[in-house]
Amino acid sequence: MIDWKINPSFNRLVAELGKFPGVGKKTATRLALFVLRQPDAEAEALAEAIREMKARTRFCSICFHYTEDDPCPVCTDPARDAELLCVVQEPQDLMAVERSRSYRGRYHVLHGALSPLDGIGPAQLKIAELMARLADGSVREVLLATNFSVEGEATAHYLASLIRPLGIRVSRLAHGIPMGSDLEYVDDATVNRAVEGRQTI
Amino acid sequence: MIDWKINPSFNRLVAELGKFPGVGKKTATRLALFVLRQPDAEAEALAEAIREMKARTRFCSICFHYTEDDPCPVCTDPARDAELLCVVQEPQDLMAVERSRSYRGRYHVLHGALSPLDGIGPAQLKIAELMARLADGSVREVLLATNFSVEGEATAHYLASLIRPLGIRVSRLAHGIPMGSDLEYVDDATVNRAVEGRQTI
Repeated sequence: MIDWKINPSFNRLVAELGKFPGVGKKTATRLALFVLRQPDAEAEALAEAIREMKARTRFCSICFHYTEDDPCPVCTDPARDAELLCVVQEPQDLMAVERSRSYRGRYHVLHGALSPLDGIGPAQLKIAELMARLADGSVREVLLATNFSVEGEATAHYLASLIRPLGIRVSRLAHGIPMGSDLEYVDDATVNRAVEGRQTI
Repeated sequence: MIDWKINPSFNRLVAELGKFPGVGKKTATRLALFVLRQPDAEAEALAEAIREMKARTRFCSICFHYTEDDPCPVCTDPARDAELLCVVQEPQDLMAVERSRSYRGRYHVLHGALSPLDGIGPAQLKIAELMARLADGSVREVLLATNFSVEGEATAHYLASLIRPLGIRVSRLAHGIPMGSDLEYVDDATVNRAVEGRQTI
């Protein structure tokens, strides 16, 4: 057999691509073969895009989202409602809220959720930075958009207990039936919450 | 909303990763976020692996498989049976045969299959090069391992018609029941071929 170690540079790329989440050896090989078949300029563009993105992207010193400019365009956008702050676990959660086109306030990225068993306490998250932002009284409402997991819920409750004493309204994303779902296939707990949270139309 | 164009370098990487086969915008975003979260050295290793693989890999001038050295280690391996030649459509087909650990001969990569409607005739494939390899009479058997598609079958038949007159044995991969299959779920045509090709045990 061909020992692919005889083609070390191909092997190395397969190994690097195999580090991506959800990419096994077979997919990594397929991706590496794709790169191999592409014109040199295309492969160079990919390599350069990786380098440039890493070199240019940092965290916004206000909201801790990824940005090329600090502060980020969201934090400096005068059209955004500065009295409304949405707290999320990760940058991709912020991107999900943005995609919904339903929110025009600002953000704060915690970079995780409380998880004592994993050694993640308040000091490991951007919580002190959040409280500092709230200290001047300019924020009217904090929307806690952490995940509906054990860790996300614990984090939301912890933050609510810190923020409520400041006289700031604390809200949470609504539970309910996902859009387009058949009631028949929605889990009982979700239907339960949707009934409890029913709205007059 | 955040227009991701405000983070052009991130956007560019998503676009580049989105060119991979089977990678949509959502997956590309997930992969780009993974790169973003990695240490700089890891991202640099990936970028460098892409560059190096492209710079070092070429086609073997004998078998037309990818290689870093020309001729490739398979073509120069004295332990390989030089009288046996396996013809495949693409380098990944060669890799599949190698993985089966069932073959100890040499290879010839056609880089495609005959497809008149797509403008792919004999001149677009490495067929002249194959015939030149067979001209000295040192090859005893050619195993046609093109795909069992219309194009692959047409290519195999075309090659067989060229090679048989040289007095060289021409063989084809066996059809039959895939290993571990339940007969019940195998398509009729495959069962048919497996019965016709039955072997004494």
